[in-house]
Amino acid sequence: AHATQFIDFEALAVLISIFVQFLTNQGTMETGDMKERYLEDFEAGQTFQSERIRIDADRIKSFAAEFDPQPFHLDERAATDSIFRGLVASGWHTAAITMKLLVEGDLKPAGGIVGASFDEFRWLQPVRPGDELRVESEVLAVRASKSRPDQGVIKVKTTTLNQNNEAVQVLVGNLIVLRSPASKD
Amino acid sequence: AHATQFIDFEALAVLISIFVQFLTNQGTMETGDMKERYLEDFEAGQTFQSERIRIDADRIKSFAAEFDPQPFHLDERAATDSIFRGLVASGWHTAAITMKLLVEGDLKPAGGIVGASFDEFRWLQPVRPGDELRVESEVLAVRASKSRPDQGVIKVKTTTLNQNNEAVQVLVGNLIVLRSPASKD
Repeated sequence: AHATQFIDFEALAVLISIFVQFLTNQGTMETGDMKERYLEDFEAGQTFQSERIRIDADRIKSFAAEFDPQPFHLDERAATDSIFRGLVASGWHTAAITMKLLVEGDLKPAGGIVGASFDEFRWLQPVRPGDELRVESEVLAVRASKSRPDQGVIKVKTTTLNQNNEAVQVLVGNLIVLRSPASKD
Repeated sequence: AHATQFIDFEALAVLISIFVQFLTNQGTMETGDMKERYLEDFEAGQTFQSERIRIDADRIKSFAAEFDPQPFHLDERAATDSIFRGLVASGWHTAAITMKLLVEGDLKPAGGIVGASFDEFRWLQPVRPGDELRVESEVLAVRASKSRPDQGVIKVKTTTLNQNNEAVQVLVGNLIVLRSPASKD
């Protein structure tokens, strides 16, 4: 009886390991596809968070060399004499990182994050080498499209914050979101 | 006398070559620094042009992989099923290229192109592989800062156009510009 019990525990351990793997895959699928939100799933007041991304001096400079070649984004020495008093990231680099954080965050509108226009877009603080950025998003409004019955628009305020919880960028965007295939009205 | 004349021509050639080099360097300095515009040099109605930058599929995908990893920016096949019906550049990629065109264009505000905020920011048309982008900028307003006597703000509308002269992005930004060191009022 004791020997049989040992074998049962081993088998159980294997079964548990398979079950855990199954649960883990389930989890991945859910965050990947199944959690996409249709227009009907959004409402004003909802908030969403993101992971963090660290920005370093090398990427600040290489991004700037390609897209924003100004001394205060390219070279520490030249930057000390600038309006920023030191090397800072291009605002477009901050905006691009914000998008990455949004796409990988929990917002996940069905059909993707597709911006139509912005009501507000403002850089509030410089982003410097070593800063860790994250975003907080809040749904401000949800409305169905009059001309396109399969779509709607959500107005989302996205604040990009650094490791000291200082807002470095604020963006209020209007995103196109698909309506649920189930909705018919 | 003839021999002497030959030697004079050679010396002249060397002098001309040095003089041409001097002029060339002068030219570089002028476009680099000397043509910077202070607040006093701007007025509403001025327009500025840029060169062109071609955007290709590989850079569309690699930019998206880093900053905007959504199927319609990453993969032709997946993009055909999306709202865009084909591969398109991230709007943030278009915005970044716009900045590059602005920085290398004729606007050249003293102290650099430093955006404070935007009154308008809108993507009008998708940007697709092979498109050639350029910008047209127009100064809409110029005002001195009340709190900072050494600075002012110019409001600039920047339209990004493709090779078919279709506007793909419109941006109305408020840029901080230094006042001329000569100005005292």
